[in-house]
Formats: sequence, C-alpha cells, structure tokens
Amino acid sequence: MRLNNHINPKYKSSLQKRKSLSTKNLLQRLINGDKVALSQSITLIESEQKKHQKLVDKLITSSLPHSGQSIRIGITGVPGVGKSTFIEAFGKMLIRKGKRIAVLAVDPTSSVSKGSILGDKTRMQSLVNEKNAFIRPTASGSSLGGVARKTRENIILCEAAGYDVILVETVGVGQSETAVHSMTDFFLLLKLAGAGDELQGIKRGIIEMADVILINKADGENQKAAKQAQMEFKRALHLYPEKQSKWAPKVKCVSSLNNDGIGKVWDMIESYKNKTIENGFFHQNRFEQQKFWLYDSLNQKLKQNFYDNPKLKSKLKTYLTQIEKQEISSFKAADELYKYYLDLLNAK
Amino acid sequence: MRLNNHINPKYKSSLQKRKSLSTKNLLQRLINGDKVALSQSITLIESEQKKHQKLVDKLITSSLPHSGQSIRIGITGVPGVGKSTFIEAFGKMLIRKGKRIAVLAVDPTSSVSKGSILGDKTRMQSLVNEKNAFIRPTASGSSLGGVARKTRENIILCEAAGYDVILVETVGVGQSETAVHSMTDFFLLLKLAGAGDELQGIKRGIIEMADVILINKADGENQKAAKQAQMEFKRALHLYPEKQSKWAPKVKCVSSLNNDGIGKVWDMIESYKNKTIENGFFHQNRFEQQKFWLYDSLNQKLKQNFYDNPKLKSKLKTYLTQIEKQEISSFKAADELYKYYLDLLNAK
Repeated sequence: MRLNNHINPKYKSSLQKRKSLSTKNLLQRLINGDKVALSQSITLIESEQKKHQKLVDKLITSSLPHSGQSIRIGITGVPGVGKSTFIEAFGKMLIRKGKRIAVLAVDPTSSVSKGSILGDKTRMQSLVNEKNAFIRPTASGSSLGGVARKTRENIILCEAAGYDVILVETVGVGQSETAVHSMTDFFLLLKLAGAGDELQGIKRGIIEMADVILINKADGENQKAAKQAQMEFKRALHLYPEKQSKWAPKVKCVSSLNNDGIGKVWDMIESYKNKTIENGFFHQNRFEQQKFWLYDSLNQKLKQNFYDNPKLKSKLKTYLTQIEKQEISSFKAADELYKYYLDLLNAK
Repeated sequence: MRLNNHINPKYKSSLQKRKSLSTKNLLQRLINGDKVALSQSITLIESEQKKHQKLVDKLITSSLPHSGQSIRIGITGVPGVGKSTFIEAFGKMLIRKGKRIAVLAVDPTSSVSKGSILGDKTRMQSLVNEKNAFIRPTASGSSLGGVARKTRENIILCEAAGYDVILVETVGVGQSETAVHSMTDFFLLLKLAGAGDELQGIKRGIIEMADVILINKADGENQKAAKQAQMEFKRALHLYPEKQSKWAPKVKCVSSLNNDGIGKVWDMIESYKNKTIENGFFHQNRFEQQKFWLYDSLNQKLKQNFYDNPKLKSKLKTYLTQIEKQEISSFKAADELYKYYLDLLNAK
C-alpha cells in the first residue's frame, strides 16, 4: 500500500518494532497530519495485545485535546443503495473545497479481511488515491460494542490528524445504526425510489434518527419515482415529534452518478452545524454521547463480569430449569443468584 | 371493606398478627378461593418489612404449582378512552359465563392512596360488588421495576386463588406498557375514533405489541368515525411484520356503554389462546417472559449495586468532569471506574 511508496520494507519493519511504538513520536506525526502514522495508530487500536492497549490508551488521551474539530456524519442505507458512489461523489466535492475527509465504517458482521463494506479496496477507487482522503475498513471485533469503541477511538485519531469531515458508514445490521448515530453529529439515510409503499420495510427508529433522507439514483427514468418517494417521506416525517436539535429533517433527491444535488447536501450539513452550534445542541449532544458511551461501557462490564463467570453460568442454568418447572419465581431466583455472585466476589 | 362484612375488626387485627402470617394457613385459604386471604397476601407483598418479604417468598413459591391456569390480558389506552367502562362490561360478561376475574393495574406514578387508575374504589362500582370479581389498585412502589414485580407476584396469587381471567390495566406512562406486555398473554389496545390522522400521537411500539385494537365508544354519532378509524388501523397493521405468535392482530369497534361487540372480544381471545397453545407459542412465550424477568431483575441489581455505591458515585462525578474537559475518553474512564469498583468489592 502507500507505505511501500515511501519507505523501504525492511526499515518499515524495524520502525514498527521501535519507533512506531513510541506514543510521543506517533502523536507528533499524527498532529502533523501524517497518514502513515494514522494508519499505524489505528492498527494499534485493532491489536488485541495488552502492551498495545496501554499505548492506545496513552495515544487516545494525548490526542483528545487535538480532537473534536470535525463534523462527524453517519451514513446508512441498505446494500445496493449506492453508498460507495455517494461517498465518492461527496468526498471528492469536499476535497475540491479544500477539506480533508476520513471514511470509517461500522460493520460488526465483518472481519478485517472479509468485510461487507469497505473491506474491498477496489471500492471508492478514485477517492482512495486522493491525498486528502483517508479510508479505513471497518474495525474488527466480534461484538458491536467492541467495533463501536474502536471506531470512536478512530474518530479521535482522525480528528487529531486534521481531518475536517469524518464519514462513518454502516450497512445497518442489527443495532449498528444506533451505534453510528450515537457517535456522529449528523445522520444521513440513503434510500432508493421503488414502486409502491416507500415506508414499508424501513426499520423503525431509523427515520427518527435521520437528519436528512436522500433519495439516491434520482437520474434518467428514475426521476419521477424519486420525486414520488420524496413526497411520501416528507409526509411520513410529519408524524414524528420535533427533534431535540430543533432541526427539521429534510428529504432530497440526488444522483451520485451525475453529481447532482451533492453540493447542496454539504450546504445543508453546514447550515445544520451552524444552527445547532448556535442553539447549544451541537456540544450538548457530543457530551451526551460521551456520557452514553461511558454508561454503556460500564453496563457491559458489569454484565460481562457476571454472566461470564463460569460458576455463575452453571448456577444460572439450574435456576432456569427450576423456573421452567415452576419451582421458583423469576424474582426469587434473581435474588438468590445475585447473593451467590456477591459471595463469589467476596470469597476471592 | 369486605373484610368487615365477614369478621369482627378486633379478631381481624389478631388474625393479622398471628394466623394470617402463617404461610401454610394463607396458602390453604388462597387455594380455597378465599378473597380475604388473597387480599391479605397481596398486602404482605406490598409490605416493605423484611420479615414479611420472607413470608412472601415462601407464599409465592408454594403458590407457583397452583398458578398459570388463567389467561392474562393486558389492557392499555390513554385516560378518557373508557378503560373502566370496558373492563366493567367485559368483566360482567365473563362472570355471566361462569368465569372468575381479577383486575390488577400497573401505574408507577401512583401510590396506594392516590392512584390515577383503580385507586378510586368508586370506579367499576358494579364489578366491585360481584362475588367472582377481585379488584386491586396498582401495587405501590417508586420504580416501574418494583411495581411490575409486585404485579407479577399478584398474578401468581390470583391464579392460585382460582381466578380464570386476569386483566392487567395500565395507563401507559413511560415504559409501563412494555412491562404489562411482558407479563400478559394477550395485549389489548383501546382507542377512540378522532378526527384526522388516527396514527398520529400513538407511541411507537404500542401498535406492535397489540393483539387487538378496539375502537371504543363506537356508538351513536361516533359510529361512522369509528369505522373510519378501524380502516386506518387495519391499513397501518399491514406495515408490521408477522408476529412470532403467528396471530394476525385485529381491529374491532366496540361500545362498552351499549355492551356492543364485547362478547366477540372474548371469542377472539379464546381463539387466540387455542391457536397459540396449538402452535406452541403460548407456553414458549410464558417461559420467555419468566427468563426476561430473571435477567431484568439481575441486571437491575448489578446496576444498583454499582451506581448506588456512595464512593463510586463521587468518583463517577469526577470522571464526568474530566470527560467534559476532554481530559479522558469515555472508554478509558469506564475501564478505570470499573477497576476501582472491583477494588472496592475486594476490600470489603
């Protein structure tokens, strides 16, 4: 990859062993906008090794004061809706405006090698070669929580490296849209115009999260259907209560292929940012998101420590059998199991 | 109350002190269908005293083998929709059919004395005097979790006392509908026909839970609007995926005042029960509910023990300030807080 264009492979390996593992050095290079340092840092985040985890902690903490300056945009839509094509058109327009953009992804079903989004480097071919674009496949991890944490940390690093616009793409499996929504400032839903009822089949909650619904591929013969879909979504949006941000969600038609309407999407996001900074929502929301991640991580840890305890696991099984046989109520079982857990902790 | 009709008040007080506090005696009377014993048992559940709690545990455990035979029906609808009138008409029809019915409520905003539902004994006046009806105001408690637990325990006792149909009413504040849905077999949503868009203002998720939507007060001049509303809801229900129960939710017009359509509601519930017993959902669902309450109670306990710890509370506050100042990431803060918590537990 890019690494090989810059340095000798042998030197690279020694760099990884020594130089790249110094937080101070990495941070300095990060802040200077060095893309290689950013890649290396993210690779550290991906690492499961304990010693790397300590370095990551230091790196993130020292990157924090340099982060937060970007606009973070969540992008979702079913496969085939044209997310890559949209991101390419949108990204190149931003680069022409002098922005530096980073594209990340949250796809918990994917591993590093075989991701359903962004795993394939041949996607977004024209964007990948841009000096001012940084594209990274989805973080690895078996749980959404793990993937989401790494993606959030990646956002901080990208911002420290001076990227102005962070796009976080998700394919919308399970709760991944909620995760992306809770780490971004603006949420963009891509849709295709179809025949019949546009609202059918949309996951509940997605429309509620969207700040804009873009009807993509509104070109050629599709234009009429796209206008029709736009109408239907506009009507549907009226059923939703006002957002805390006071932003009224929009529905727009775009053609990523013909580069039609793409510039206006950015204008809209800028006016969203201005409005919400002015009314205080922008920063309030970011702090709420940080609190959400704090509580979410804590609650995950509490549950993990409990349910992953082998002794407790077998005890829980016994109680479930008793509950099924109507020998004990769920509540009494919970009382006894919890007491058992406290005894286990104290016995340590 | 009824108690005074049966026994001398002085004797009652000594009974409460001695006899009523023997589980064996209470259970025997419960199983014999003694309404006074049922009232006393529920009063024990309401009690916050530790010694009573132990009795309750025993009572519930020994009632369990005698429970589970009823059909549990959840009823929700906004204030003014006519829940009491419906329950009266529905309950009296059932009593004429030889059933014994119990009416419970989940209303976490209410205390024993000033409940917004069922607190007022003048409501359901004609039902309250029926020998085969048992009406109990909402359980007390400051949290929905507490109220829900008590109501579930009350269901077990009512079933042990031979009640065939348990109605659990809720006014739909916050998550109370979800709580009632997760303790009942059949969920009934009462609506009024209004002008314009019937779907507007309905809490998301409620329609998804409903097994039947009843348009109440479909009488006199209201009839046309009720039919209209019925159509709209039928159309809306098509947008929802098939239920796990394989039951297709129905929309019906009723007039509780004219006793119109009330009998058919019961026929429908009976065919629901037959269908879901046959396809296995009925019992599977009850077991899933029990598991849900087990995990829910455990997770509540885990969180309580953590967040209610005074030392942890002040530590959490410090971290929140640091997070807001961008001095630490949410994830690192969670790691450190959790480590601190484990140290606290081990130091005990």
